[in-house]
Amino acid sequence: MGSRPVPPSSKRTTVRGRTADRGAYDRSTINAILDEGVVCHVGFVEDGEPFVIPMSYARVDDTLYFHGALAGRAMGALGSRGIVCVEVTIVDGLKFGRQPISHGINYRSVVVFGPGREVTDRAEKMAALKAIMEHLMPGRWADIRQTTDGEVAATAVAAVSIAEASAKISCGPPAEDDEETSRGVWAGTLPLRLSALEPVPAPDQDPKVPAPEYLKDYGRGGTSG
Amino acid sequence: MGSRPVPPSSKRTTVRGRTADRGAYDRSTINAILDEGVVCHVGFVEDGEPFVIPMSYARVDDTLYFHGALAGRAMGALGSRGIVCVEVTIVDGLKFGRQPISHGINYRSVVVFGPGREVTDRAEKMAALKAIMEHLMPGRWADIRQTTDGEVAATAVAAVSIAEASAKISCGPPAEDDEETSRGVWAGTLPLRLSALEPVPAPDQDPKVPAPEYLKDYGRGGTSG
Repeated sequence: MGSRPVPPSSKRTTVRGRTADRGAYDRSTINAILDEGVVCHVGFVEDGEPFVIPMSYARVDDTLYFHGALAGRAMGALGSRGIVCVEVTIVDGLKFGRQPISHGINYRSVVVFGPGREVTDRAEKMAALKAIMEHLMPGRWADIRQTTDGEVAATAVAAVSIAEASAKISCGPPAEDDEETSRGVWAGTLPLRLSALEPVPAPDQDPKVPAPEYLKDYGRGGTSG
Repeated sequence: MGSRPVPPSSKRTTVRGRTADRGAYDRSTINAILDEGVVCHVGFVEDGEPFVIPMSYARVDDTLYFHGALAGRAMGALGSRGIVCVEVTIVDGLKFGRQPISHGINYRSVVVFGPGREVTDRAEKMAALKAIMEHLMPGRWADIRQTTDGEVAATAVAAVSIAEASAKISCGPPAEDDEETSRGVWAGTLPLRLSALEPVPAPDQDPKVPAPEYLKDYGRGGTSG
């Protein structure tokens, strides 16, 4: 932590309300959350109203990449250079207090604000498509045939800079008043993890082809809950 | 499925783009996704710009409830009667195709649009607080002391109707052209589940108090990936 300069704070990224003390702005913390998340939630404004759409994504250095069809709402918004809000949340566990108010979720979340832009440069597009696959499936890109020019042309790619971002983290045991701890109620945390089951071959899969090594022990990481 | 009337579709809830065939509008499907999700992602517009904030929630009949401090951005937006977008996504697995383009995430998601309203009636407020706890922690509400009047007064509760909602589901094996299936690459799905580890007692926990029954075999359900 702390190896990168703190990104500039702004009115948008300042955490407000009673959870203001959970705000964190360190770039390495932000990157680790973005790299562990599976889906992001892209918020944008259309005709003055808010939309939130879940999307695949990947981080490459200081940029988030997305892919899809330009006819889709989110890719249209991401390509239009309007401000979008990209949010990623990882659920780490549930917090059981003795007071009702000290129950809650342990989580790590990031919000990124910025204008989207359509990526048209072929090399940047290919790098983005590879990054999005490798974000979810490390090792897969080298295992399959190359993306064709036709496929690249048919896929829209958009990018958002991580210049304006903040993280919010809730972790550890429930925080409680001393006078509450004597009650005979169990308090603590229940850690939750996104974990993989056994791979399921496609119905037409040749049974002689084994499941690849990178599917074994698949995991997204995680903290102690 | 299909036991409830289909909610009215609208321009907002119509799924656009190449995933339009994944749109589903059946209320029982929508309710099942809302009930299984852990966090939702609340989108709203402030000064013309989009915000997305992760929140706890619960569904009671045709209403989604949220709690927090009114000083927070999301509760402020939810209490202001402006249109919000509430999105819930459950990740069910990863899809590995033979073509690069047939890789992706298996998921179930819901978006709900509507004006938020602050809940001030004490009975509705208490029912909402209970529902939010029981959504995450079934069995917990009866196990702890009652919420005090002071705690209820210090907590803001907001509601959004599920009148305008849609679901989007991606499931099953990767869809591929026939000529691709002969390649010697493994294709299939890797199911992912949010699963619980062993409960971790709070540092000040009396070791004579056992972890409650409702923490054993904790799970959010899920499909076959």
